[in-house]
Order: sequence, then C-alpha cells, then structure tokens
Amino acid sequence: MSDSLDFLQPYFLGPQGENAQMFEALLVELVRDHTFWRRNFHPEDGPSIRTSSQHAPESIEFVDRMKTELYALSGELKRAVPFFHPRYIGHMNADLLMPGLIAGMATMLYNPNNVSEEGAPVTLEKELEAGRQLARMFGFNLDPEAGPCAWGHLTSGGTVANYEALWNFRSVKFYGVGLQAAAARVDFDPPEVGPLGKALSAYTAWELMNLSLASIIELRRDVAVSFRNDRGPEAFEDFAAAVRAERIETLGTAGFFQQHADLAPPCVMVPASAHYSWEKGMKVLGFGTANLIKVDVDQHMRLDPAHLEVCLDEALEKRIPVLAVVGVMGTTEFGTIDPIDAILRLREAYRGRGGDFGVHVDAAWGGYLSSVFRLPDGGMRSHAAMRETFRHFPSHQVYRAFGALADVDSITVDPHKMGYVPYSAGAFVARDRRVVDFITQKAAYVFDLGGSEEAVPMDRKLRNLGQYILEGSKPGASAASVYVTHKVLPLHAEGFGRLLEQTVHACEQFYDRVLAMAKRLEHLVRIVVPFEPDTNLVCLAVNPAGNSSLAEMNRFGRELFSAMKVEPDQPVQVKRFIASYTSLLRDNLPEAQAERIATEVGIDPESFRLRPDVDAGEADHIFILRHTLMNPWLRREHDGQSYIDRYLEYLEARIRTLLHPPAEGV
Amino acid sequence: MSDSLDFLQPYFLGPQGENAQMFEALLVELVRDHTFWRRNFHPEDGPSIRTSSQHAPESIEFVDRMKTELYALSGELKRAVPFFHPRYIGHMNADLLMPGLIAGMATMLYNPNNVSEEGAPVTLEKELEAGRQLARMFGFNLDPEAGPCAWGHLTSGGTVANYEALWNFRSVKFYGVGLQAAAARVDFDPPEVGPLGKALSAYTAWELMNLSLASIIELRRDVAVSFRNDRGPEAFEDFAAAVRAERIETLGTAGFFQQHADLAPPCVMVPASAHYSWEKGMKVLGFGTANLIKVDVDQHMRLDPAHLEVCLDEALEKRIPVLAVVGVMGTTEFGTIDPIDAILRLREAYRGRGGDFGVHVDAAWGGYLSSVFRLPDGGMRSHAAMRETFRHFPSHQVYRAFGALADVDSITVDPHKMGYVPYSAGAFVARDRRVVDFITQKAAYVFDLGGSEEAVPMDRKLRNLGQYILEGSKPGASAASVYVTHKVLPLHAEGFGRLLEQTVHACEQFYDRVLAMAKRLEHLVRIVVPFEPDTNLVCLAVNPAGNSSLAEMNRFGRELFSAMKVEPDQPVQVKRFIASYTSLLRDNLPEAQAERIATEVGIDPESFRLRPDVDAGEADHIFILRHTLMNPWLRREHDGQSYIDRYLEYLEARIRTLLHPPAEGV
Repeated sequence: MSDSLDFLQPYFLGPQGENAQMFEALLVELVRDHTFWRRNFHPEDGPSIRTSSQHAPESIEFVDRMKTELYALSGELKRAVPFFHPRYIGHMNADLLMPGLIAGMATMLYNPNNVSEEGAPVTLEKELEAGRQLARMFGFNLDPEAGPCAWGHLTSGGTVANYEALWNFRSVKFYGVGLQAAAARVDFDPPEVGPLGKALSAYTAWELMNLSLASIIELRRDVAVSFRNDRGPEAFEDFAAAVRAERIETLGTAGFFQQHADLAPPCVMVPASAHYSWEKGMKVLGFGTANLIKVDVDQHMRLDPAHLEVCLDEALEKRIPVLAVVGVMGTTEFGTIDPIDAILRLREAYRGRGGDFGVHVDAAWGGYLSSVFRLPDGGMRSHAAMRETFRHFPSHQVYRAFGALADVDSITVDPHKMGYVPYSAGAFVARDRRVVDFITQKAAYVFDLGGSEEAVPMDRKLRNLGQYILEGSKPGASAASVYVTHKVLPLHAEGFGRLLEQTVHACEQFYDRVLAMAKRLEHLVRIVVPFEPDTNLVCLAVNPAGNSSLAEMNRFGRELFSAMKVEPDQPVQVKRFIASYTSLLRDNLPEAQAERIATEVGIDPESFRLRPDVDAGEADHIFILRHTLMNPWLRREHDGQSYIDRYLEYLEARIRTLLHPPAEGV
Repeated sequence: MSDSLDFLQPYFLGPQGENAQMFEALLVELVRDHTFWRRNFHPEDGPSIRTSSQHAPESIEFVDRMKTELYALSGELKRAVPFFHPRYIGHMNADLLMPGLIAGMATMLYNPNNVSEEGAPVTLEKELEAGRQLARMFGFNLDPEAGPCAWGHLTSGGTVANYEALWNFRSVKFYGVGLQAAAARVDFDPPEVGPLGKALSAYTAWELMNLSLASIIELRRDVAVSFRNDRGPEAFEDFAAAVRAERIETLGTAGFFQQHADLAPPCVMVPASAHYSWEKGMKVLGFGTANLIKVDVDQHMRLDPAHLEVCLDEALEKRIPVLAVVGVMGTTEFGTIDPIDAILRLREAYRGRGGDFGVHVDAAWGGYLSSVFRLPDGGMRSHAAMRETFRHFPSHQVYRAFGALADVDSITVDPHKMGYVPYSAGAFVARDRRVVDFITQKAAYVFDLGGSEEAVPMDRKLRNLGQYILEGSKPGASAASVYVTHKVLPLHAEGFGRLLEQTVHACEQFYDRVLAMAKRLEHLVRIVVPFEPDTNLVCLAVNPAGNSSLAEMNRFGRELFSAMKVEPDQPVQVKRFIASYTSLLRDNLPEAQAERIATEVGIDPESFRLRPDVDAGEADHIFILRHTLMNPWLRREHDGQSYIDRYLEYLEARIRTLLHPPAEGV
C-alpha cells in the first residue's frame, strides 16, 4: 500500500526537506526573474543605490541589525509546530504544496493588492479565476448564458467568508420590503410585477421576505421598468434614492424593524456542531446569538433533518424570517458532513408553504473533498466507482451531500486548510453572482434597481473587487498561491482529488486499527470512536476500564494528551507525536446522543450533565483526542510500520504507563 | 540634498534590484535553515521521499507542470505594477523593507496560524509584541500597574480593524443597559454601585449608555461583588447567564431595541473625508449608513470641530447615543490629519453634559508617522525641534493631533501601507485591553461580570487570540514581518521615523515645485493644490486657462491622466510615470469649500452641483491627480534631476501636448 504514495513525492518540500534542492532552485529562479524585471524598468535611470554604499558604516550597521533580527527569528521558529511532518496529526495543518508555496513567496515580491485591478493587474484576475475553479469543483454553473453564473473570491479565512454569507443574504432578504416602502413613499404602485404577478402593494411583507434571489431580481426589474415607463427616466434617480433610503443597510437593523414593527428579526439555523465563528458572526453583524438556532445533531454528528424541520415549522408558525440554514461540510471537531441534500429538500417543501431561506455550506474544512467526487469532465463520479477505491468512504449520505452542493446558494471553503496553501487564504463562493448588485458600495445610479441595459458588464464590475466584499486591501500573493495550486492540480479526482484520496485512506486505516486496538485493550481501557468518520478526522474517547466517573475519565484523557501537545517553551524534538483534543460539550448534544456516548464510554449518563456542581467541575463535557489525518505521508512505511502504526503503538504505551506507572525507585 | 538618502541604501531591494545579492543570500540562508530543521525532526525516521523518485515519469511530469505554471505566473507578473520604483507615485505602495519581506517569506515556510498559541508558539507572541510596539509609538501605556494597559493585534487590513473598533464600542456601550435588565429580571438591585454611587435601578438608560469603559468596568465589578455578597457564589452563574441573555450581542440589534423601545439606535460620526469602509462597516455591523453622520471638513480637508459640535449637540438633544467619533489620520485621498485633540476636547465637554462616546482614529495611512514625533525614550519630540527638520511640517494643528493620540480609545493602522511590509497586515490597537472581556467568545463563567480574582491573567488569555478578534485563522508570517521590521527600525524618530521623514521631505519638495510650476504655466493652465498637504500626499486640479466648464476640465484631467495609469494589457515599460487620481465629490464638501475650490480652479461654482442634469454628466465632482510620495528614492538625483523634477517636467510636457497637439502630418 505504501507504494501508492509515490506519485506524491514531488508535491511537497517533504518531512526531511527531501526536495530542498528543487525548491530552492525554483524559488531563487523566480526571485532573480523579479530582480531583473526591476532592472529593466527604465534602466536609463541608473542605480539609486550605489555599490560603494555597502561599505558605509551606517549600511554595515543596518545589515548587522537586520541579520541579527532575522537569525533570531529563524532560531525562534525552531519552536514552531512541525506541521509538515506525519508525526503531526493535530489541527488542520500539514506540509504545503510546493507550487502554491513558491507562487506565494515569489508573488510577495511584487506585492499586488487585490482590492482592485489598479493595484493588481495580474493577480486580481487570478483570484477571480481561483473563484471559478472552486465554483466548478462544487458543480456551479459558470456560463452566464446558461443560468445563474457563479463567482468566488478569497477572504482572509473561513470566518470572514461566513460573515460574508450572512451579509449577502441580508441584502437580498429585506430588499423587497424596502422596495415596497420606497414605492409607497413616492406614491407609485405598479400592477402585476414580480413572481406573483400582482401589484407591488399587494405583496405581504412575509411574501417579500420569502422570495429567492432570482425572484427578487425579477421583482426589482419589473418595478424599475414599470417606473420608467410610467414616470420617465428623469424621475428614476429620485426613486432609486428612495429605495436606498428604505433598505435595511441604510436604516440599520434597529431602524428597519422600528419602521416595520410587525416584522420579527430574522434567525439563522446551524447544526449544534457548527464552528464558533457563527456565534461571533451573529454578534458582529448585529443579528444576536439568541437568533442563532442550533439544530440537533444525530448519532453521526450530522445535522438532524427531522429537528431542522421542527425548527422551520416553528419559525413559520411564528412568522420569523429564516435568513439562512447552514450546513457544515466537515465539522471542525469531527470532520462530519451534514445532509446538504436534506436541507435543500426541506427548503423545497418550505417554499411550497410560502417560506424561503438561503442555504449556505460552511465547507471551510471539507470543501476541497469535492475534488474527489468530480470527474475531469465536470461530472460527478458514480458512487459505485468511488466505493471501489475506499473501504468505507463515501457513505450514501456523504455522497448525496456532496452531490447536492451545486444547488446551495453559497459556500465557504479554506484553501489554507485542505488546499495545502499558506495562510491566509479562505474563500467565499456564490452560486449566483448577481447578488453583488445588492451589496455594492457604489452610490449606484443605475444598478440599485437593476437597469440591466446600462449596467457595466459583471466581469468588469468585479475588477473593483473591494466594492463587493467585506474586506479591503488584500494580498495578491494568496491569489497566486491558490490559483497556481489549482492549475498544477486541477480540482477533480485525477488532480487534487488524488492527493485528498490519500487522506481518506489514512483515515480508514487509522479507524480500522483503532477498532482493533480497542478490542485488544478492552481489559485495560475503553476506546470509543464517538462518531464514525465521514472524511479524514478521527476522535477517540479513552476511559480506564471500570471507571464510571466522568471527571476521572477527563483527567485521564488530559494526562494522556499532555505528552502530545505543543508546548511553547519546549524544543519540538522532544515530541514523538503531536495530536489535538476537543471537548464534546453536553450543551451541543441532544439527550439521546449524550446518553449513548456516555454509555459507550462506560460512564453514568447521569453524571454527564449540563450544569455540573462545583466539585464535579468537569461533568459538562467529555475530553477526547482529535486526529486530523491530512498529512500525505501518514501511510509511509519505515521498517514495515506506517506512521499510523507507530502513533497507535505510542498511544498504547502511554495508556499502559499511565495505568501502571513504573514504581519510583531511588 | 540627495546625499541625505544614503542611509536608506541597505533598507530595500532597490529600484534596480541593487541589493539583490544580499537579499538572495539571506533568503536562501533562512530557507536552508528551515530545511535542516525539518531534517532534524526525528531523523531516525529516514526519508519519506526517495531520491530515486525524481526519475519516475510521474514525478517528472509533475515537476514539468509545476515549472510551466510558475514560469507562466512569473512571466505574467511582469505586467504587475512597479510599486518599487520612484516612477510610481500613485497609490499607497512602494518598495518593501527588506527585513520584513525576508521575515515574511521565510516564516511562510513554517506556516504558523496565529489564531491561537497552539498553532503559533512563536509568532503569536510576535504579533502581540508588534501590537505593543505600535501602542508605544502612539504613546499608550503598557504597564498594567500604571493604568489602562494597551494591546493590539494584526488584522487582514484597515477595513477589518475599523469594523473591530465599532464592534468593541458596541460591546461596552450597551453593556450597562443589559446589566440593569438582568438584575431586574432576578429581582436584584444593589445600592450604591458604579461611578454615580447609586442603586443600579436608579441609573437611567441614558446614563448607562454614556459611561466610559473604565466606569462600566467599575459598575460591573460593584454589581458582581454586591451580588455575591448578597446571594452567594452558587447563584452567581444564573445571574451571569441572565446578563448574557440581556446583552445586545445576544438579543441582536433589532431585539435589543424592541426590548428598550425608548432608546434610539446609535450613530457614528466620521468626517466627510472618511474612507468608504466606514459605510461598509455600518452596513455589515447592522448599524445602517443613515446613522453614519458625516461631519463637514474645513478648508484643509480636516474634520471641522465646529460642525462636530453641532452634530453632537443635535445627538444630545435627540438623545441619540453616539457610539463613536472617528478622526482620520491621513485621509486616503489627501493625507490630511483630523484634529484629534479637538475631538477629545469636545468629548470632555460632552462628558460634562452627561454624554460620552468612544474616540477611534483611522490612522490606516498616517499612523506610522507617529514614529517621526516619538523620541527613543518614548517622549514626544518638541514642535520646535521638528520644525528645524522640515520646511512646513508639522503644522501646529498636525503636531497637536499626533500628540493627542495617547488619549483616544483605539487606532487603526496599516503596516502594509506606510509600514512598508507586504500584504496583508493591518492592525487594531486599543488603549485599554480590558475591553476584550466584553467581546470574548467564551461562554464565560466568571468573566462576564468580571470576577477579577478568578480571572485568567490577561496575558495568558490573549494567547487565545481568536476569541477576541473579528477574524479566525491568520498568518503568523505577517506577524513576523511586522515584528522584525519594528525591531530593525524601532518606531521612533531615530529608527522608522528617519525613513518616513524622507517621505515628508519629498512631499515638501514636490509641493514647492508644483507651486513654482503653477506660476510659470499660469498663462496655459491653472494648477491648484486644493488642500495644502498635511503629510506626504499631494493632489492637483488642472484646468486649461480660460476654461470655465467643469465637464471640460474633468475631460482634460482624465486625458492628462490617461498616460499615467496602469493598463493591464500593456507592458509596464511603456509607462514613464504612474500616478493615481481621485474625484473631489461635491457631496463630501460643505458649500463654502465647494465654492472656494471651484473659484480657485476657475470654474463657475454654479456648475459644481450635487445633481447634474444628464448632459453635464460630470458636474458632481472635480477630477484631480493624486500623488503618494512614499517612495524612498523620489529625491534621488540622476544628472542633477530628482524624480520629482522629472515627473513635473513630464507633466508639463503632457499638458503642453494636450493643449497644443502637434499637427497630424501625412
């Protein structure tokens, strides 16, 4: 099995820097290429820095300081985390793909600013192309003639991409209500407009808040055309200003709901397993964490559609607008995959009852796995063909979830996670790029109501990227890094997918061996995988045999982990393996799951409580070891043992030592 | 004068890559150092990548693809903007300081993630130290014993730092109202608490919304102590939960104001010259652009304190809480400096009348100029001493503004602008780090009400950086870049300030020569500097002599500029100089200023109108050329001419050609 890894050999600098010569040669080549570019920009000017200056005392002193600080940094960085090595199986980090790393380093010399084309004639186009590459991987359409055309761009990370999703949804959700209010203000009431083919004033606020993006665009266009025909183009600008004045972006959330006192503030639904950035986002954007509805997870740590349905019913009944339902594709803790297909089916049903909501997928972690499912021609691989490659992956549920991505509204994905490129590179990808007309920062004379005939072509508009995104100045170097990576390893099963397949193989091997080890050691400890892996993360709960105290179990887990954690004041060389941990919070588990897991690990479910008393301190969570199996060399064998074998051997030895500490001699 | 630039010679790679050898040698050294670190992490494992694999057809094919794409990128980047060259005087870009550039590139190999110490044992500390370096430059206190202790961290850019300021202020502004509501809910009313020494219930909402951070902390502590004494520690957790439930972050903006229907939503005051990210921030955070009060600018394009006072009076009268007043230190378009001292004086007066607001300074551009004002011992240079160095800089107003920074609440500053480090590196610096307790994402059992005795020490808390900032994963490489730059060039007048002095000298030379040129060419064109430079940007309005049509003037300006703009499909070598432009929007000018400028450039003030009719299309703005004079080599002379001389010579030639085009011969 080890041999199947050989194709990866030139991808990375390597656990021992094996490809150092190639890496250095390429880097130096690009650095020199850059230097000569400088030299050939108006060479007639002659040098501004003189060779003789190198010997000036002040110059020597500066270089001395620079070297001192750079050497100090380089020395201190020897305490950095050895992410590159297969002995690191902690967080979502591994070695970096060489093409992207070199591209990023080299582009930094040019320092382009992707906020607009003026600062980045080359890399802004690369960023938009990287967005298209990702969109294609998810199955989104990219032909403007063929339907809603996708777009994507990079962010500083998944957190900001998630904020952006909420910001985009808000701009569409409340547009209709603002439009109606503006029309009323100028005493204009077009008949037969929008998807319901009736007078604008006849739309109820509930109807207006539950139109899809396409329907809102239709309504906006109908109203604009009707206004121009009725009142003439001269009056149009006043109307556009009135619409702007009534929008939630202008009034603010408080002002908007004061003006529309009959409307309830919107909610957002996420699985209980969602990343904490969703709470942060609700605070930052002013929605409030009380309006973040946490949908239960099922026994696979996936969003439970039955409970989502209950939540949706309740929202419908109470007339609470649902801004978005978020599915997670690769939870941070467990790598599990929410049933995106079920979320979309529930939306269809909800639409039938007059409701609507945006569907966003937080695929910060798992998004790149789409490449494993994608054929080079753009189609999906068949489930049967994939199952020939793997032992367990992908389950029917996981397969359906990836297949459903093409129909969601937007996706967060982090190239700086499973894209193996340097920080920082997150991405936001939307299925229908027309959404940007709702969030532009321009004082838009024509766009606000969508006068399509005068509009600047979308491709040209997006070159003013800063107008359409949450951030401002942004590194073109990241764009180059992501783009080049995708060019060298196209985002399908024969390109990038081939690398990611290895992470799934590693996970399957790890999982199978853990189960065997659990069985072998059951007289000593209970080792439980609380959720079967959906992708390439495996978590373990470990409890000494016979112990039924959760506090004791957690204490044992922490001690087990203590040798495997990063310690800023220790040389990394003392670590044999580095893992990570997480806490399974009682708060995030439905009753049945909490009981199941407590029973499996052998503790009294009663002791796994939400509100521990002071003494039992630890009883609101279960401490678990967390392993991210993304390093490409995990299955590499040395002396017949893979790194997975070695890690489990090490873990077993640690367990044995903790359970039977050697007698302290003198 | 040219000789005075010599000390800068080793700072940069150089306009012709003059320091290429030193740069390459250092970079390669750090790359190899990294490689050997890899090699020495568990060398007993042996290589995972075999030398023989280099000859495998698949490896060769991969390397071929990688080279193809990297060479293609490197080739395309030859159309990047030559920011490094003194012929580039457009946006806020120049060559990068070598120490930071090398540090950033080298650290990228380690790829630390500064979201928490677990992913960045070295660079997280560097980031917090970079925050302290910036805080020290601004004059903030860093001794926790001596008073409010500052902290700072990096962001992806100034835009996000500005959002963060609003998010921080909100968390404090509405805390008191939430605290009071929670106490009422559990039927608790402590007597004599907080700065007003009265019962919690006796505070009016207006009083609670107008307490400073220090006062809110005092109130919180008093209430917590009182509660514990009264009800015992067991009940405390319920109370803390009640407080959380009543906070605006939980209820959301809409819910909070529905619950407190008598309160008006808050406003934010910025000068009319503020960056568009403030409008975007008001939208993103849900405050609404209608609540962004644009304060008039004066004849120096600085916030007009008299008008700010009018705005504040109105807010006080209407009982509209003022979340923040923002001063801009270095406007994006003109580099002008708002009177921060006057804003603080107005706050003092406002406090006397029972109001309060946060003061934030958007110093994305100008923040680093503080280093010119700072002595190595931490004190301020005297104005007299500074005036000996420069011809005009700093004016009394500018000097006072920089001197006042130490008393503001928070500051945005962009190392990737006047810090000469690569993208992306913005920063947010706050005067009192205790603010983070109001925005933490932790379900805080003890912090929410400030049980100081149990609290984790602040220094340790901040190592979980992601809990206290808007973003999540973030590049340790940026932190290394900023930190090393500050170490090599400390942020005072004898370190970094010495570099920045040159930018001011360049500006003064540019300004003086423009005035001379304007005089010399007055028979041909009116060249007007609409606002005297406060720092290192100069804008020019150019109008053919005798023309009184604004549309014609703008057309002329655009044509003049057309040869100096970046064109993605042209080789950069064809450009002789690259500048930038901006539009002086009528919308952003008070009547008197609009009239003054129109008169100075020789157009009918009547034609400079807010709402142009369709034919006059252009009359809502004046097109102006914008020059950022941050390149270190602008005053470098070749053949007795500095780049400033050459640029102005070029500009003059362009003007003459446009006014008297050569006859088209056959």
